[in-house]
Amino acid sequence: MTPTTPVTSERPATRSTPRATTMKAIVKAKSGPGAEVRDVPVPTCGPGELLLKVKRAGVCGTDLHIYEWDRWSQGRLKPPVTLGHEFVGEVIERGAGVIEFSVGDRVSCESHIVCQHCTACRTGNAHVCPNTRILGVDVNGGFAEMVTVPAVNAWKAPANVPIEVAAIMEPCGNAVHTAFAGPLSGCHIAVTGCGPIGLFAIGVARAAGAARVFASDVSPYRLDLARKMHADAVIDVSRGGFVEKVMELTQGQGLDGVLEMSGNPVAVRDGLAALRNGGRISLLGLPKESFELDWNRLVIFKGVTIHGIIGRRMYETWYQMDHLLASGRLDIRPAITHVMPMQEFDQAIALLRSGNAGKVVLVPWGENG
Amino acid sequence: MTPTTPVTSERPATRSTPRATTMKAIVKAKSGPGAEVRDVPVPTCGPGELLLKVKRAGVCGTDLHIYEWDRWSQGRLKPPVTLGHEFVGEVIERGAGVIEFSVGDRVSCESHIVCQHCTACRTGNAHVCPNTRILGVDVNGGFAEMVTVPAVNAWKAPANVPIEVAAIMEPCGNAVHTAFAGPLSGCHIAVTGCGPIGLFAIGVARAAGAARVFASDVSPYRLDLARKMHADAVIDVSRGGFVEKVMELTQGQGLDGVLEMSGNPVAVRDGLAALRNGGRISLLGLPKESFELDWNRLVIFKGVTIHGIIGRRMYETWYQMDHLLASGRLDIRPAITHVMPMQEFDQAIALLRSGNAGKVVLVPWGENG
Amino acid sequence: MTPTTPVTSERPATRSTPRATTMKAIVKAKSGPGAEVRDVPVPTCGPGELLLKVKRAGVCGTDLHIYEWDRWSQGRLKPPVTLGHEFVGEVIERGAGVIEFSVGDRVSCESHIVCQHCTACRTGNAHVCPNTRILGVDVNGGFAEMVTVPAVNAWKAPANVPIEVAAIMEPCGNAVHTAFAGPLSGCHIAVTGCGPIGLFAIGVARAAGAARVFASDVSPYRLDLARKMHADAVIDVSRGGFVEKVMELTQGQGLDGVLEMSGNPVAVRDGLAALRNGGRISLLGLPKESFELDWNRLVIFKGVTIHGIIGRRMYETWYQMDHLLASGRLDIRPAITHVMPMQEFDQAIALLRSGNAGKVVLVPWGENG
Amino acid sequence: MTPTTPVTSERPATRSTPRATTMKAIVKAKSGPGAEVRDVPVPTCGPGELLLKVKRAGVCGTDLHIYEWDRWSQGRLKPPVTLGHEFVGEVIERGAGVIEFSVGDRVSCESHIVCQHCTACRTGNAHVCPNTRILGVDVNGGFAEMVTVPAVNAWKAPANVPIEVAAIMEPCGNAVHTAFAGPLSGCHIAVTGCGPIGLFAIGVARAAGAARVFASDVSPYRLDLARKMHADAVIDVSRGGFVEKVMELTQGQGLDGVLEMSGNPVAVRDGLAALRNGGRISLLGLPKESFELDWNRLVIFKGVTIHGIIGRRMYETWYQMDHLLASGRLDIRPAITHVMPMQEFDQAIALLRSGNAGKVVLVPWGENG
Repeated sequence: MTPTTPVTSERPATRSTPRATTMKAIVKAKSGPGAEVRDVPVPTCGPGELLLKVKRAGVCGTDLHIYEWDRWSQGRLKPPVTLGHEFVGEVIERGAGVIEFSVGDRVSCESHIVCQHCTACRTGNAHVCPNTRILGVDVNGGFAEMVTVPAVNAWKAPANVPIEVAAIMEPCGNAVHTAFAGPLSGCHIAVTGCGPIGLFAIGVARAAGAARVFASDVSPYRLDLARKMHADAVIDVSRGGFVEKVMELTQGQGLDGVLEMSGNPVAVRDGLAALRNGGRISLLGLPKESFELDWNRLVIFKGVTIHGIIGRRMYETWYQMDHLLASGRLDIRPAITHVMPMQEFDQAIALLRSGNAGKVVLVPWGENG
Repeated sequence: MTPTTPVTSERPATRSTPRATTMKAIVKAKSGPGAEVRDVPVPTCGPGELLLKVKRAGVCGTDLHIYEWDRWSQGRLKPPVTLGHEFVGEVIERGAGVIEFSVGDRVSCESHIVCQHCTACRTGNAHVCPNTRILGVDVNGGFAEMVTVPAVNAWKAPANVPIEVAAIMEPCGNAVHTAFAGPLSGCHIAVTGCGPIGLFAIGVARAAGAARVFASDVSPYRLDLARKMHADAVIDVSRGGFVEKVMELTQGQGLDGVLEMSGNPVAVRDGLAALRNGGRISLLGLPKESFELDWNRLVIFKGVTIHGIIGRRMYETWYQMDHLLASGRLDIRPAITHVMPMQEFDQAIALLRSGNAGKVVLVPWGENG
Repeated sequence: MTPTTPVTSERPATRSTPRATTMKAIVKAKSGPGAEVRDVPVPTCGPGELLLKVKRAGVCGTDLHIYEWDRWSQGRLKPPVTLGHEFVGEVIERGAGVIEFSVGDRVSCESHIVCQHCTACRTGNAHVCPNTRILGVDVNGGFAEMVTVPAVNAWKAPANVPIEVAAIMEPCGNAVHTAFAGPLSGCHIAVTGCGPIGLFAIGVARAAGAARVFASDVSPYRLDLARKMHADAVIDVSRGGFVEKVMELTQGQGLDGVLEMSGNPVAVRDGLAALRNGGRISLLGLPKESFELDWNRLVIFKGVTIHGIIGRRMYETWYQMDHLLASGRLDIRPAITHVMPMQEFDQAIALLRSGNAGKVVLVPWGENG
Repeated sequence: MTPTTPVTSERPATRSTPRATTMKAIVKAKSGPGAEVRDVPVPTCGPGELLLKVKRAGVCGTDLHIYEWDRWSQGRLKPPVTLGHEFVGEVIERGAGVIEFSVGDRVSCESHIVCQHCTACRTGNAHVCPNTRILGVDVNGGFAEMVTVPAVNAWKAPANVPIEVAAIMEPCGNAVHTAFAGPLSGCHIAVTGCGPIGLFAIGVARAAGAARVFASDVSPYRLDLARKMHADAVIDVSRGGFVEKVMELTQGQGLDGVLEMSGNPVAVRDGLAALRNGGRISLLGLPKESFELDWNRLVIFKGVTIHGIIGRRMYETWYQMDHLLASGRLDIRPAITHVMPMQEFDQAIALLRSGNAGKVVLVPWGENG
């Protein structure tokens, strides 16, 4: 990870600075693969909103899907849209009615813009609001010099958290949400799939006092990152053997919980098979297509609980994550493998495609990366 | 339902009664379909055990599977074994060390004999003990004049509960366990599959204050029983349409919970589709084979929780059920459609096969049915 | 209870109606006991607000305290302020940005106006927001012809709920919140204190499938209302004996839960003593002063859980209550003993003081009570 | 802490060893202060029991109360009784029917012998069984060369846990039970009272990922031990100031949870005052007498939850503790300040009285301390 310029050296912007009317952004300009650097208008800042100068942004697997224009993207995106749903920025303007932030604040952002009126929103389940719009997917996001966000989506990043980490609180929150969906302390936990969110989840489970955390993947590169995140054991499943290995590591007791980050049907089935009776599996990884289970053997006879997980609890997950990061209990820096200029977005995508990357963080134009 | 002879007219047996050495029983005598009435030795009553004079016994779908000698039965049963895992009896002898029951007590029985030593047993999860042996499956059961059970498995049936109901507390407990796996009060609940356990579940959900309880099945006979159990609406899914009907009944809000009793893949998928985001589905019905799901659409994006349910919480479920039955909040009598002599077991099996039966209760030899 | 004019006969107001600039209201005009009918300006309707034509309003014990100008009132209220925090009204104007309500909607109101920015508000615990302002206490309330409320505080009352009931969803929500703080279904529950909220709580516990609900008070009048709410047993504690009576009613098992509505130290201590080990007591009643407990005997050795309860979960409690009321599972009409014109507020206060009243509902000027 | 002779050097006893018929023990021989070393018969080993050669035993505050013959002791103990309820021993004989342990096993013991028949025992709440008998209080305990315990109370100590730690799993379990009664991970937690259980609780909260753990006491000696257990801050409350200090340490946010280990009324009140709204306080410390609270301000208006805590969840707490100790996440060795011969019991009591001791561990006659 490239050394970070100290936070204190960043000169706070103020409203008195004459501001440009256009800016650079990574834009999905039209249907079809790819994305391009474009000059676009600087976004306006309406009531209840914040205008941010973007400092760092994370690249997500979803960005890769959008770049490649997969079926999901084709059905969801309405180009042109500025990409980027993981980022940290500095407040340079606040809209009417915003009192809880000041110009100069360093804020990370929840990417789900929710309706606030539905049953889910009104009962503490805004993360499954059916009317959710996502920054960088449905509305313009943070792969840009500036971005506008609802103030309610902004989170003041703890002062002692490095700026690259502050940029990726959104995906880190996925890991916190998944991990905290069931018991961790004193438990035997496996994380299946060691992409960035899996790597974060290893750290979260360790921080929350899991007795042992096992991590599985097929990639030696990712398993090496899992070791750097202090997994107690890593399991190379390129030739199978997950269940046997877990049973060996737990003296036949099995797992208390599985945090499923791969979306791989084999990982789900093996995760269920390796659970002790009464255990839980929390599914965040998105399978590419429907797949089948032996429900009797893997779910019903075992009395297992399966959680579908999406987003972050708003904003309970953010409090938990903030406290874990600020206290130093959770350190996700080993999962950040690349910091690079935002204009090299194509190379970032290529890196992700290669599989030889953890989290890739982008530095916008004019920021000192 | 045939009128029941009042409980008070049953003369309590005592140890001084000279006891026969053989008795009648329904026995799976050998591998292959069928079961037969046999004269077998009266079981002995060891330390910690109770010898019961069986008063009534329920026939379960599992008994049908055993009768038909399906694949599961072939792998599990070791003939000869006396069938019957739902029954009520009168204590006629208690083994050494048993203090909590007296001769003459009317007891219903938990069918799972658990090891008491494993992690599950030692942490309040005995219902998923991996060493479970089941009465009437792995050890001799209650389709007989007498049966021996561990005292720890016996439950003093509330005095005001009819004897046919006391006989089927085991399957009723399945319904209580499934229903109480998530919130019910003030909720919109669907029960998918109106066999006996589904019918009981309708009653449990109503008793627990579910705002509305919907019941689905393909059989007009069973839907009629669902109405008798006071389902707020019944849904005939013989031509599909479950999701649309639920959405209409809930003004598009969807369900808070599904109690899945059918094991039918379509019911599981439709149940998930009809859940509101963040809802739960509790699976008790056993699918015949593996089946697939669109996990993204039905589970992950919706933030749904899936419970695999087996048995009854030992013995929390029994307390809950006892209180609901004894207080009259739960009345499952409409689900009992037939009471017949135990020697007519073949006819009982035929009834179950026909689908035109709710719960069938058997009256042993010499009992006044 | 006075028969209610059918909802459909109420002519919906529209913005085209020329509106008066002053209106009648019950105002705490200055420090000291009493309250008075005053002509005050019709409130304005700002962004995110609703202007309501008040249809009915409930009188609360808190209103009595304010009237009597007790120490709490002296420290909290800043006269002049229009009283009234329980009411239902018809939307006659909606402020800028309000989309989820229409003119003509019949809405009941959450009385807690919360900050939406603090940790409590951001983690689903807005009911304990430390920045709460209360309608009719800190800002002008609903004892008036019209009232302005934040749209986020409004709740569309179910169409089939009588208007007097819709008026008192706020205190009914206190009962729902208290009752749902722990298990109810299949439980033995006592409600200590049969003022209006205690009476509602009896209904809620019954609706949620409590096996038996016991209600205690010192007033024969209130115990009679408890019977009308279908308490399974009422306990006159004017000469003590609560614990003994509960033990007799539960065959020595004790209670699973106590819903404490009286604020009486004896009720709290007796409630704890009558709990089974591991039970819960949920405290809503406000004690007049500090009081002591034998913590070892009543709390620690018993492994009891004590909940402090305030307000309503926003808005989970409202959903639960809405479903219970709309489905008819919960009927709180027997607790409404008086419906009277709002200008007779002094008499309403006298009624409350006498103790010979359940819930008193007021009918504003010009409404047909 | 005195270095421990490796476990492997301990020669396993076998039944073939000719065994003495009397042994040394610390006995409360008669009513009144004190305790004495006596020769007593070696206990027999009945069905379902284990006979243990005691290896180490911990001295508890309760032992001090019994020694001093306080009012509680006078009402509870029936001399003569061998004291000692915290100990580890080696299995030297197993009674009839015991299959889950072998001669030579090193076992720590749950001190609560429960009835297994009551509602509490049958619903996973055996820790509040009203029929509990306690080792070393109601039946002969482990301050002796040998002790008999029910096999169900024995816990195979993890092989890598030092024998002095294995001796005090019982009080460590109190800390685990208290801490795990509410959320810890990412939370701000205070432990009030730094006796041994408080010290263990600091370690448990840290292991479970509490963001910050604060510890308070009036004794510099104990606060120093709290630092050694890695409390993030220690608060000397000998001149008050707890609430102010906590608010300063948490930037005014307050605590998410308080683990109350002192039984001091001021600690309880200050703990409640320092909680954020909606927080929890878990009470294990036993107050000397009744005390009062301002319930409105400290409990009800804040929506706080209070837990009475006793014993350990049987045996969920033991699994959690076992995993935390075996994995090294929890290390309670700094809380063990003295290891001394059992015959010096009077000196051990004097040490406890002085306040200048953490946990004191005793080495029985003939063991190598």
